[in-house]
Amino acid sequence: MAEANALPLVVLSEQFAKLPGIGMKSAQRLAYHVMGMSDEDANAFISAFSAARKKVHACRVCQNFTDREICPICSDVRRDHTVICVVESPKDITAFERTKEYHGVYHVLHGLISPIDGVTPDKLRIKELLYRVNNSEVSEVIMATNPTVEGEATAMYLSKLLKPLGIKTTRLAFGLPIGGILEYADEVTLYKALENRNEI
Amino acid sequence: MAEANALPLVVLSEQFAKLPGIGMKSAQRLAYHVMGMSDEDANAFISAFSAARKKVHACRVCQNFTDREICPICSDVRRDHTVICVVESPKDITAFERTKEYHGVYHVLHGLISPIDGVTPDKLRIKELLYRVNNSEVSEVIMATNPTVEGEATAMYLSKLLKPLGIKTTRLAFGLPIGGILEYADEVTLYKALENRNEI
Repeated sequence: MAEANALPLVVLSEQFAKLPGIGMKSAQRLAYHVMGMSDEDANAFISAFSAARKKVHACRVCQNFTDREICPICSDVRRDHTVICVVESPKDITAFERTKEYHGVYHVLHGLISPIDGVTPDKLRIKELLYRVNNSEVSEVIMATNPTVEGEATAMYLSKLLKPLGIKTTRLAFGLPIGGILEYADEVTLYKALENRNEI
Repeated sequence: MAEANALPLVVLSEQFAKLPGIGMKSAQRLAYHVMGMSDEDANAFISAFSAARKKVHACRVCQNFTDREICPICSDVRRDHTVICVVESPKDITAFERTKEYHGVYHVLHGLISPIDGVTPDKLRIKELLYRVNNSEVSEVIMATNPTVEGEATAMYLSKLLKPLGIKTTRLAFGLPIGGILEYADEVTLYKALENRNEI
C-alpha cells in the first residue's frame, strides 16, 4: 500500500478518514479528488475552511455558531425571547427553523451528558443556560434533545436544575411520526403514542 | 436556513458538498465537525491538504501520483518493466498491488475516453504510454480498465493504437467473481463466464 501511494497522499487520506462518516476507502477517493482539483477550487476549499474556523464562534447568548457577537436569532426582536428551546447541536436549530412554526429562541448545549464518553454536565453549555434563565425573563424551557438515552438523561438533568427556579420545563412530544406506518412502528414509540393519546 | 447558519459555515458546507460522494446533509455535518476541531487537528488537516497538493505530482514514467520524480514502482529494478498494466486511476494500482501477484509496472490514464463528458483521447495520458512503448522494451500491455462502456471503449482504442506497433495487448478476464453466487450473476457476466470457459 505505502509503496503504491505517495506519503503525502496517505497522510491526506488519513486526515479525511478522521472526519465523521468517512471510511478509509472514501477518504482515499477524496484524497485523489483533491489531487485533481484546479488551483482555484483547492484555494476556495482552504479559504472556506480557514474562514469558518476564524470567523465563526459561539453566540454569546444561545451558543449557536455565528460570525457576529450575537446571532441573528438572538438579536431578532420579533422572536419570543421568553421561550428557550434547548438543543444538542446547531444543526438541530436548522431543523426547527425549517418547520417555520417556532418563534422562540434557542440554546445549544454542544453535546449531551454521557459519562461513558467523558461528557459530564460541566462540559456542556449549561451554566450559560442558567445565566440566561436567571438574568432574563424566561417563561418556558423546551427540552428538545433526541429521544435517546443521553438525550433523555440530559433533559431530566436540566429539568431538575430548572424546576426549583420556577421555570416551566417541557419536553418534545413522542409518538408516531406523521406519514409513518403503524405496523412498522417499534414498540417503545407505539407505547409512547398510546400513553400520550389525545382526545379528538 | 441562512438565518440559522453563519455565512462562513454555509460556504464551508458548500465546499464539502462539492467533494465526490458527499451530499448537502453530510457536508453540513462535516462543517459543524470542523468548528469543533482542536486547533491542532484543524492545522493537521490543512497541512495535509496543502502538502499533498504541493508535493505530489504525476510520475514522469507511469503518471501515478508520487512525491518523487519517478515513483517507487517505476524505480523498482525487481519489477518486470516489459509488462505494462494500463489503468484508469491511481487507486486501481492500489487494488492490483493488494493481490501481491502482479510484478510488472503500470500506466495511469487519469480517466477514460468519454466524448459525452468531453473526455477525448488527447485529455488522457496516452501519448506518454506511446512514448514508453516506443522508447523502452515492452512485451505486453494489459488493458485493465473497468468493464464499463467507457472502459471497453478506451481498451479498444488503445489496442488499435498499439497492435500496429507489434505490441501484444491483452484484456483482463471477465467472468464470475470468486465467492459469487451463480444465481445472482447478471446475464452479461454469466455469458462472459461461459464464453471464456477453460478446460479443467
